[in-house]
Amino acid sequence: MNATYSPGLEGVVAGTTAISTVGKKGRGLSYRGYSINDLAGRASFEEVAHLLLHGYLPDRDGLAQFRNRLVARRGLPPALKKVLEQLPADAHPMDVLRTGCSVLGALEPEGSSLDGERTAERLLASFPGMLMYWHHFATRHRRIDLELEEENFAGYLMTLLHGKRPDELKRRTVDASLTLYAEHEFNASTFAARVTASTLSDFYSAVTSAIGTLRGPLHGGANEEVMRLVSRFDSPEQAEAGLKEMLARKEKIMGFGHRVYKDMDPRSPIIRNWSRELADASGHRPLFAIFERIEQVVLEEKGLYPNLDFYSACAYHLCDIPTAMFTPFFVFARITGWSAHIMEQRQANRIFRPVAEYLGPDPLKYPPLEQRRQEP
Amino acid sequence: MNATYSPGLEGVVAGTTAISTVGKKGRGLSYRGYSINDLAGRASFEEVAHLLLHGYLPDRDGLAQFRNRLVARRGLPPALKKVLEQLPADAHPMDVLRTGCSVLGALEPEGSSLDGERTAERLLASFPGMLMYWHHFATRHRRIDLELEEENFAGYLMTLLHGKRPDELKRRTVDASLTLYAEHEFNASTFAARVTASTLSDFYSAVTSAIGTLRGPLHGGANEEVMRLVSRFDSPEQAEAGLKEMLARKEKIMGFGHRVYKDMDPRSPIIRNWSRELADASGHRPLFAIFERIEQVVLEEKGLYPNLDFYSACAYHLCDIPTAMFTPFFVFARITGWSAHIMEQRQANRIFRPVAEYLGPDPLKYPPLEQRRQEP
Repeated sequence: MNATYSPGLEGVVAGTTAISTVGKKGRGLSYRGYSINDLAGRASFEEVAHLLLHGYLPDRDGLAQFRNRLVARRGLPPALKKVLEQLPADAHPMDVLRTGCSVLGALEPEGSSLDGERTAERLLASFPGMLMYWHHFATRHRRIDLELEEENFAGYLMTLLHGKRPDELKRRTVDASLTLYAEHEFNASTFAARVTASTLSDFYSAVTSAIGTLRGPLHGGANEEVMRLVSRFDSPEQAEAGLKEMLARKEKIMGFGHRVYKDMDPRSPIIRNWSRELADASGHRPLFAIFERIEQVVLEEKGLYPNLDFYSACAYHLCDIPTAMFTPFFVFARITGWSAHIMEQRQANRIFRPVAEYLGPDPLKYPPLEQRRQEP
Repeated sequence: MNATYSPGLEGVVAGTTAISTVGKKGRGLSYRGYSINDLAGRASFEEVAHLLLHGYLPDRDGLAQFRNRLVARRGLPPALKKVLEQLPADAHPMDVLRTGCSVLGALEPEGSSLDGERTAERLLASFPGMLMYWHHFATRHRRIDLELEEENFAGYLMTLLHGKRPDELKRRTVDASLTLYAEHEFNASTFAARVTASTLSDFYSAVTSAIGTLRGPLHGGANEEVMRLVSRFDSPEQAEAGLKEMLARKEKIMGFGHRVYKDMDPRSPIIRNWSRELADASGHRPLFAIFERIEQVVLEEKGLYPNLDFYSACAYHLCDIPTAMFTPFFVFARITGWSAHIMEQRQANRIFRPVAEYLGPDPLKYPPLEQRRQEP
């Protein structure tokens, strides 16, 4: 038995991977050998998704085929639509996705073939439709068409949400953000997916675990918390005063710091640039200035840098994405990384079964029912 | 960073617990200080559930109140019933429970109160109804009544399944098996529940992860695999020959050995006794003899002892439980242990975020779309 105990398994190697490096010396963040700067700056999200799911960057034909497969797999079975229609308008959108994934697993099970790549593409293609079908039905009782022609993934997503195609700057921002959110090694949700996959359970179960894990405010929910924080302020000055009060009360500020990146999150300057460009183009420079001031205050007072979630909140808000959908957008991207990890786990599987240090009572004599006291 | 890497986190301490000991020297298996032999032999499953969820064995009044609360929480919301009616008859029963749990989380969310004990009791009370409602609707298009008066949990379960009260020996066998399956420290499904809970996600998400993880054949599915194996043989002699062939082909025999128990699983002789008693009472001694012979062969040939799953398959089969429901019965019991661990995780939380050893490609130069080859 390992004598040292590291809470939260911080720094503990829980497995091997060939999918990404996170904050590795001389590499930073890379997906299958390619740096995040190249990928976010030069590749479409579909190319990144293909890289993660199939192991290599597609050529022009391969990319076209991949996009066609995704377009063809957008429809939802009628039974799943009926399930989505049962979920109330005030349901948590992550509960909707978690449920949608679970139901799809019951309706279109893997069977014994365990074709991970096929299931991964199905989920990548259909998650936006699950959420948006529920959203429009629950809020306006409209049954929207999910099988649109729009072949660009970010464009499809935004069209489903808003009922019209996005302008090019917003589409490109969402595309880049999907690449940034696509993969991040053994973060909690990916780790949960691998733990579930390690019992040789099915693909949908592993993804359902990941969604439920991402849902928490310490993980995927962070960018939503950022937006709720920023919404409380009308000016940089107000933000600075508010932040200083929060820090004095030792409140945790979401969107800052990272267990693995000890200084900068390399994704942060990329999404910051997109946010600034959007703010400039849409006359929202004052909002961006509030974000900048908060960044400054937290750096000065706590020495912490913003992580991806901080300026993602700004970018998504300026793309007219409702705050409650920020974490689902994270799912639309991260399903690629989760899927890659589930397939990798299956290739060289060992069930996750750690042990606990026992801190409970010494052996107790069993008291018959008559001899027990009320709550001890 | 921890230099040693233990595949599947074997032997790695991933946290502390006061809930149970598994194979600890001088204690064996105990729940909150009480030995499994006392609990399985002298307590009802409801007393054990109360011990796990609320931390102590109830007195007579406390037990009656607990049973009343469970009886009162058996009903399902109409929306959840409609969802269950969408799931086909050939769905995997664990997909049904995973979906039911997820939907209940959308319909009856914890909100900001995070009352774990209340949610735990709700799930404990309602899981049997979720499965059995779907089962009777999908197979016979009957909408059964879930809100029966029967206050004994094992009796309720069996009555829902068979439409009549079980005989006392079967009821007591199921009751004891629920106690044996209730809790087992950091097994994969419980660990998955804690990983999900560690992002401060909601209770239902953590349980949904656990169900999906338990579903795998290396974990909860093991007792079903045992039954499928045994069903292939008509006599102990046939079983012996069949097993020897399997072992010669290096096939894995489910239901034997355990990562933590190096010799005997203390739960195994208990469920073995119940199985023999049932076999004697119902004229199924020949079936029991096949189980016994397999136990003997695997011990002689591989030096492995049966774990809980092996004779549980025999006991459940003799209680007329369909094989596909063995793992759901595991859920009906283990929801108590999962719940205790989720609450414990919340009390002293640290997000689970281990690291991976990178085995992927060295940094690669990004090739523009035009310069890529077909699949490398």
